[in-house]
Amino acid sequence: METIFTKIINGDIPSYKIAENESCYAFLDISPLAQGHTLVIPKRQVDNIFDLADDEYQELFLFAKKIAKAIKISFPCIKVGVAVIGIEVPHAHIHLVPINKVSDLDFKKQKLSLTKDEFELITSKIINSLG
Amino acid sequence: METIFTKIINGDIPSYKIAENESCYAFLDISPLAQGHTLVIPKRQVDNIFDLADDEYQELFLFAKKIAKAIKISFPCIKVGVAVIGIEVPHAHIHLVPINKVSDLDFKKQKLSLTKDEFELITSKIINSLG
Repeated sequence: METIFTKIINGDIPSYKIAENESCYAFLDISPLAQGHTLVIPKRQVDNIFDLADDEYQELFLFAKKIAKAIKISFPCIKVGVAVIGIEVPHAHIHLVPINKVSDLDFKKQKLSLTKDEFELITSKIINSLG
Repeated sequence: METIFTKIINGDIPSYKIAENESCYAFLDISPLAQGHTLVIPKRQVDNIFDLADDEYQELFLFAKKIAKAIKISFPCIKVGVAVIGIEVPHAHIHLVPINKVSDLDFKKQKLSLTKDEFELITSKIINSLG
């Protein structure tokens, strides 16, 4: 069965796309912990990130590195935090979140509620920082 | 200045070592969120994980993948969660934590207090699962 993320990759569900290549896709989390919170996923639908082949897995993390650098330029922060949890959607995904303290990466925190205009502005900021 | 992790790598501070190779080191977090909570670090002292060279960064994550698989065998769980926060120690480190629900990766949670015997048992369990 297709996950919601596969539907996003295929364009059946809209997303605020940041970047994609042959095997990876990055888009904004629509329930973000912070402005710039991005999800990076493999196009191949695999539940557990550690079940990706070594080369797929390494490419995914390298793709995430480029996105993380663009996020940090767009939304100045001490670090871009990384989290892979994967309990809620059975399609491996890396969370990239601008953080200034440990609790900024707390997924029980109240999520931001942003408008379409705000999401579009965040998207273009990060894309412009991709260089 | 040497970080506490560089001191651990050099053996100046003891650790419950899980594995190491030429450029990476894995050891138990002594304030674990769960039994099996492991830290994976590059031997080169770099604060921000995204400042590692691409090959170093990819090798670190590949090393973490092998450790994560051994953790999952040793401590059955839905996923091995991944977190890179890096606010408290200025030496890049990947947290690997057995999780069964999102809140299991909450770093504000009360940490486990384990005895030396318990840490040693956890260490040998994971090492035995490395295969």
